[in-house]
Amino acid sequence: MRLVLVTGTTRTATIDGISAAGASPDLVAHTPSSDAEIVVYGEPVASPVTPVSPTGCPTPAAVTRAVVERLDLPVTVVDAGLAEPTAAPTVSVDASPGGDLRSAAAVPDAADVFEAGRAYGRALPTDDPILLGESVPGGTTTALGVLTALGERATVSSSLPDNPLERKRAVVAEGLDASGLTAGGAAGDPTAAVRAMGDPVLAAGAGIARGALETGTPLTLAGGTQLLALAALLRHDGVESPLSLATTSFLLDDESAAVAALADSLDVDVRATDPGFDAVDHPATDAYCAGEAKEGVGMGGALSLVADADADMASVRERFVAIADRLNPSQPADDPAVTR
Amino acid sequence: MRLVLVTGTTRTATIDGISAAGASPDLVAHTPSSDAEIVVYGEPVASPVTPVSPTGCPTPAAVTRAVVERLDLPVTVVDAGLAEPTAAPTVSVDASPGGDLRSAAAVPDAADVFEAGRAYGRALPTDDPILLGESVPGGTTTALGVLTALGERATVSSSLPDNPLERKRAVVAEGLDASGLTAGGAAGDPTAAVRAMGDPVLAAGAGIARGALETGTPLTLAGGTQLLALAALLRHDGVESPLSLATTSFLLDDESAAVAALADSLDVDVRATDPGFDAVDHPATDAYCAGEAKEGVGMGGALSLVADADADMASVRERFVAIADRLNPSQPADDPAVTR
Repeated sequence: MRLVLVTGTTRTATIDGISAAGASPDLVAHTPSSDAEIVVYGEPVASPVTPVSPTGCPTPAAVTRAVVERLDLPVTVVDAGLAEPTAAPTVSVDASPGGDLRSAAAVPDAADVFEAGRAYGRALPTDDPILLGESVPGGTTTALGVLTALGERATVSSSLPDNPLERKRAVVAEGLDASGLTAGGAAGDPTAAVRAMGDPVLAAGAGIARGALETGTPLTLAGGTQLLALAALLRHDGVESPLSLATTSFLLDDESAAVAALADSLDVDVRATDPGFDAVDHPATDAYCAGEAKEGVGMGGALSLVADADADMASVRERFVAIADRLNPSQPADDPAVTR
Repeated sequence: MRLVLVTGTTRTATIDGISAAGASPDLVAHTPSSDAEIVVYGEPVASPVTPVSPTGCPTPAAVTRAVVERLDLPVTVVDAGLAEPTAAPTVSVDASPGGDLRSAAAVPDAADVFEAGRAYGRALPTDDPILLGESVPGGTTTALGVLTALGERATVSSSLPDNPLERKRAVVAEGLDASGLTAGGAAGDPTAAVRAMGDPVLAAGAGIARGALETGTPLTLAGGTQLLALAALLRHDGVESPLSLATTSFLLDDESAAVAALADSLDVDVRATDPGFDAVDHPATDAYCAGEAKEGVGMGGALSLVADADADMASVRERFVAIADRLNPSQPADDPAVTR
């Protein structure tokens, strides 16, 4: 089993009110570079920022890292348009940072990035199953853009407790206009949908998934609505094979995202894992329980690998709390290790 | 513990009679890209070649991979001048492939590559010890060049059973001439030594080691005479702290390399691990016992992590044989799993 983490950026993230992935807009471009370092090394290494939400909720990368440490899970980071340096080792798909989806073409080189991703996906050893995750701030908005352009259910989640879905829909409407598209106007043409409304992570990720499916490498989509937008791209590319999504209970509980209905409409099996954070009294776990972050950076997929035994998940929780304290030393808990 | 594998190329490898790292000279540029994929994925992935010696001895990457699988050892590949694509995730130090050491400057950007490596070495988490290994065909010749320029003992090993040391010394003499240097002429100036006579892997690796030592990250040099040349660069850079080398028994047994004497002169502790390949009757293990390959791609460092218990090393041997068969399916053994 290997976590393939596709990371990149889109100017869409800088639109006011869109993303919580990064405490301030000028730092948000660093988030995926830092997330990759946290998953690979356990902490930001060369990146000058530690991704936290405006209220201090640590990035889902910290949860994924806890599982990586617990299970010695190998990780491969794909650079699908990073805008800032990372010291994490990366596989290149020759992608550039994505543009604002309100422009005519958000991902001008979507076709090339898809093909580079596909070549990588085809090359992966077929006897080693992959979890495909993402880190791209603003990614739920580009996911909404792609779902809308394809004519699928236009519902996505958010890294904010109150999903600014109306704001996202207005942005998407503007993007469709700028691209000369209507809702459903790119049905059956996934490359056109990503080119006009998506981000380079969706282009690369859809290509990797397509390539892995072509050679028979077992694949699990590890994430939420962004991975469902990726599944929609595969369906519109003619992929009829079974697809499965491993996500978090936090995301499945987000009524605004209506994940189960979207997955059902795309014929994607969903498995949600509850990390049991309500058993821990710590600002980091409390933030997740309060509805922040919810999913991302492969979190749900990583958690799905943890054995059902409560002792295993308790160990992941303990590691997560330790990592969260390391990432955010200004907010130590009084008693960080209270687990049931 | 993390294996940091510094990979790159030098035109020095294309000099006739220098290297066994790759069955034919036109394929040798692919060797480090393929080695990286074998260590990360267990087989060449995007690379079109499988590195074997002219007689079919599999690359030491296969041994390192066996340990990576057995111990779930994390690996970070550094691209220090790869000439061919790799699907292994890589950290960049902005290095270009190295030139022929018989030119005036083999590594024109040695100072920049050293500094980029140093920044990466400084950034690594200090609580996670690193093994520093290399893959660069022709690397023992550039190591000899650097040792000579620094005025250290001019002895190195070879990936060939009969070390073409006189050939290497003639090449080095030509390189010194072309650079306007004499033996020992770059003493105390490691950058000048690498620039004139080295390769980009030595520049990046010395930088990474220097950076790790500066921040107190525990460091083990994982390899043979190339890593001792790197140690010489550190000594000439003023590093006085203890240095240790983890290598293979094959290398220590190579009298032509005189590894123990070279290590002693550089005040480097040496630990050699014997993988017990004489217990296995298989073309791959036989080739190592016959003196091919010996070391490289972090092999000795990886083996040093295997517990002394014979059962653990037997398990590594079994994995190595399975990997060797996968890499070289045309040469299956009659009985590949005979271990004592």
